[in-house]
Parts: sequence; structure tokens; C-alpha cells
Amino acid sequence: MSQSTVSIVAGGAGFIGANLVPRLLEEGRHVLVVDNYSRGSANNLGHIASDPRVTLIQADVSDRAATAETFRRAASIGTVDEVWHLAANSDIPAGVQDSDVDFKDTFRTTFELLRAMREFGVPDLHFASSSAIYGDLGEQSLHESIGPLLPISNYGAMKLASEAQASAAAESFLRRVNLFRFPNVVGVPATHGVLLDFVNKLAATPDVLHVLGDGTQQKAYLHVSDLVAAMLAVRARKVEGKVEVVNIGPTDEGVTVRWIAESVVARVRPQARIAFGQGNKGWVGDVPKFNYSTARLQSYGWTPKLGSAQAIARAIDEIARQQGV
Amino acid sequence: MSQSTVSIVAGGAGFIGANLVPRLLEEGRHVLVVDNYSRGSANNLGHIASDPRVTLIQADVSDRAATAETFRRAASIGTVDEVWHLAANSDIPAGVQDSDVDFKDTFRTTFELLRAMREFGVPDLHFASSSAIYGDLGEQSLHESIGPLLPISNYGAMKLASEAQASAAAESFLRRVNLFRFPNVVGVPATHGVLLDFVNKLAATPDVLHVLGDGTQQKAYLHVSDLVAAMLAVRARKVEGKVEVVNIGPTDEGVTVRWIAESVVARVRPQARIAFGQGNKGWVGDVPKFNYSTARLQSYGWTPKLGSAQAIARAIDEIARQQGV
Repeated sequence: MSQSTVSIVAGGAGFIGANLVPRLLEEGRHVLVVDNYSRGSANNLGHIASDPRVTLIQADVSDRAATAETFRRAASIGTVDEVWHLAANSDIPAGVQDSDVDFKDTFRTTFELLRAMREFGVPDLHFASSSAIYGDLGEQSLHESIGPLLPISNYGAMKLASEAQASAAAESFLRRVNLFRFPNVVGVPATHGVLLDFVNKLAATPDVLHVLGDGTQQKAYLHVSDLVAAMLAVRARKVEGKVEVVNIGPTDEGVTVRWIAESVVARVRPQARIAFGQGNKGWVGDVPKFNYSTARLQSYGWTPKLGSAQAIARAIDEIARQQGV
Repeated sequence: MSQSTVSIVAGGAGFIGANLVPRLLEEGRHVLVVDNYSRGSANNLGHIASDPRVTLIQADVSDRAATAETFRRAASIGTVDEVWHLAANSDIPAGVQDSDVDFKDTFRTTFELLRAMREFGVPDLHFASSSAIYGDLGEQSLHESIGPLLPISNYGAMKLASEAQASAAAESFLRRVNLFRFPNVVGVPATHGVLLDFVNKLAATPDVLHVLGDGTQQKAYLHVSDLVAAMLAVRARKVEGKVEVVNIGPTDEGVTVRWIAESVVARVRPQARIAFGQGNKGWVGDVPKFNYSTARLQSYGWTPKLGSAQAIARAIDEIARQQGV
């Protein structure tokens, strides 16, 4: 691989990007990270932020002119052959309250990135979609061939809308699109999510951990190291068709919020008690139980190294150290 | 029904609206038609435009302030209990060329209507979605439970994006959402579509009808009278769940472009010859063959009065008269 091959990673200074960028550098690539630093931070990238093959640009890819300028900068470095689109709102309740949030950060980022890819002739898109596009289908197995897709949050809606845009772009001008439907992902640098939330709550009120909902919600969790490995494995496949849709996740059925809360307390504040709320939904847009099928991913010969419980256990320890507790 | 019950029909001065509004008036409703007249026209509504129970507003519902003003006007007439969202770009190739077209006319209209429905407490949405959300799934039966949904045009993408938004809104603040996945619909007042296109081409060049593609594309067609009847039948059902997704279409497998071309020529210019193009796609975003399942709709006890061939035959005659040929 020539040194002049460039990956653009949108939202690359966030949680996923910080774990992906080092892997792209290992391939010999130059990486242009574009991030508006609304949730991401150059600090997340640590020492790689100063790697000469990393270019950091603070810009909002929901803005057309800023996105074009970012692509011009990338093209001046070398041949840009792929965009990793990781930019999104990650605060689901905020997006339910105000639809403008997911519109701008989750939908419009995809829209403008696709316009720039067409203008600059960038052929491949790897998109961080979400299991939230499935909505609340109860006990049904959520595999890639199921429908109808009825997301219950604006976050899920704008992820599905982004998939739809990317699919149309594949027909019209892209060479390849990978739509990665993420599960709940844990690890560091943690910027949001249930583990960071619990750790921070215990720091604020050491005697009690207040949990939204009754704790029976059950979800599958993947460690970010496995997530990145899965995406790279799918990207390396020579597949037929222009659009690949794949659920990424562990092979188990997940763990409950109660188990997570108990694990965080045991690691951070063993003396704290846990106070549960009512109902099995934490907030509008939260899905109580997930039966998330990763059969397709497994059929590609890939399995995660860590199951949900192991991923959570490792991430709690990583986040506790990150937060200095 | 009180005279003060109001339906808002967005895009109501277009082809579908002109056929729907009279049926809503028959229910005793007041109807507020909002249309930007980009493709719609008050002329399409004929004598009902002057009915005292019809309020016509020229406004673009992709604009937030204009939409809020429209809803204020509707609320001043009576209790607004439903929105029919028929506004969309209908020029699929234009939307493939420039993604801003479907973004504004198909996506953003839904986005702003939903914001206004929340603000004004309007509970029910009836949305004109499309079979285009399925993309090109080959010979597979396109039923509502199939996935993944991979539209191949920005039109299809923004229709799917609109479904997704409406689904999230149902979870958060709406009472009921009907997502009607339209087939190809024919009838008058024709504003676009293959029949009007063929009739107009023959008026311009009476000796030959040039057809995009080789004529083997096969699609199902529904007459607009049946489409409106189906939507009203689904709306009248007392269903469980907040979101209904239903394919609307005839029960047959459709007719070919060749058959349509021959039928138009026979009615309009019997001496004209037909010149076919290459390939079985007319344009990017066109799906060559559709196996569109309407089993769900039939399970509700509804079937169309006209099959594809009958619908086309009637519509050719209606359009020929509309165009004065």
C-alpha cells in the first residue's frame, strides 16, 4: 500500500474512531480525522494525534462547504479511497426531545459526506449504523432480512435514513457500501453510555446507584476492540453486490441492567446500594429486550473474542481507570 | 362528525390529493389543502377548490415557519385530527442527479410536518410511502416483513427515511401512523408518469414513440380510485399497535412497458411505430421487475376493483381526454 492512500474518518475523534484509527495506520494508510469536537476530542486519540500520517481537522461534516474543504485537504495528501462515517449524535433522549439534534448530527452528516464522495470520486463508504434501526420487535430474532424497520427513536430513524441514502448512492456512484449495524459497544475512551453513567453517578453519590427502569432490560454488548476487528474483517471480504448489511455483536443474548449495575458497584463502590426505578424501559427510544442475530457475521467466519459479560467486565475496569476511581 | 373536524392534506393539490379530498369532504370534514404548487395546482381540484369546507394554502411544508402558520390556520377552523402527507418530489431521475431535490421535497416535508404535529397536538398521520423503499430485490416477493430495505434512488431513500421518522414519532407523541406503500398509480389529473409521458411524446412526434429501455420492465399499476379506497379502508380499521405498514397494489403481477406503449399507441396514434431502447432499466433508480405482495392488504378484506391492465386502459383514456387527444 502506497503511503498516499488516505482514509477519511468522520467523527474520528470519538470513542470508535480512537480505536479504529490506529488499525488504519497499521495498514500503512494516511488518516484524515474530521470531527466537530462536540463529543469527540483530540485527547481521545492520545499519541496518534501527533503521528505524521494523521491529519486532524476540526469541522462539522453536516456543513457542505466545510465538508468540501475537508475532502480537498484529503485529496491534497493522496488518493482518498474510503470514508468511515462514525459521526452521529449519541444522546438518544436528547434526540427524542428535539428532532433537530439527530437530523443535523446523524442524518445531515451522511447526506453531506455522500455529496462530497460523489464530487471527489471517493468510492467506498463504511457506515456506523445501529441495531436501533430495528425498533421494538419484541422477542423476534433481529436478523438483516427482517422487516418492517420501525425505529422508536429519532436516533434510530436517522441511522435508518442514512442507510437508505447510502444504498441509493451505491446504485448511483459508489463502488462499495458497508452498513455496520452496531450493538451496544463498550470500552475506552468512554464518552457516553451506561457504564460511564454508572461510574460517574457513584462518584457523585457514593452511597447509592440510581438506575432508570427496573433493571430487567437485557442487551448484548460488544467490546470496541471486537467491533473494530469485525468491521475490518467485513471490509476485507470480496463480496458480491455493492451494499453489505451486517449486524455486529456478540453471539450471546446479553446481560441485564441489574447485572451491569451490580458489576459496576462491585468494582467501584462495593458498599453502595442499588435503587431501581419502574418499568423495563429506561427512556423513550429504549428497547427493553433484544434478540440480536449475528448469524450472518458468523457465517463470514468471524466471532468476537469477548462475550457480553466479558466485554462489560473489561470495560468497567478500563472506564474506572479512565475516571481515576 | 362535527363540521369542525379538520384534515390537513399536504401536497393536496396534486394527483393523489385531487382524488382524496372529495372523499374526505364526503365524511363531513373540513379539508385544509397545503401545496407549494411546484407540481400541484388548484386546477387539479376542480370545483371542490371553491367548496366552503376546503381551505387552500400555498405554502412549502419543508419550511418550518410556513408549516407552523398552516397548522395555526387549520386549528382556527376546528379540531385537526389528522395529516395526510402526500407532498413529495415525483421526478425520480431529477432526485438521482441532485440529492437536494428529494431531501427538500420528500424528506424535509415529513420532518417539518412531524414537528408541527407535535407542537399542535395533531394525533394521526397517513403517509404516502412507496414500493421504491424496497429497492431491487430481484424476483423475491416484496412483502412488509422483508429486509434489508435498500432503495436504489434518492426518492426511495427519502421515502424510507420518512417512514423511519414517522415510526419514531409514533413511539414518542403520535396516536396512529399509517404508512401506505404505493405502487405505480395511474389516473387523472395526471401530472407525471409513463402514461402522460407517452401521450405527450406522441403529440410531439406523431410517427414514433421512443421508449426508454427494451420494454420488458414489468410493473403493477393501481388506479387512483382504488388507491384512495384502500387507504380509507385501512384508516377505518381498528388495529393494534400505533404503526401500520401496508403495501397497496393490485393482486396481479403487472404489465410490461411494451404492453403499455402498445396500448397508448392504439388509443392515441394507431399508425405510430414504437422504438425501444436498450436494457431493462429506464434510468438509475428504476427497478426492472417487481413482485409486489399485497397479501396483507387482502387479509384485511380489501381488493381493488381494477387489475393492472384495466387500470392502465382506463387511465390511458382519461389522460387522452385530459390532454385533448
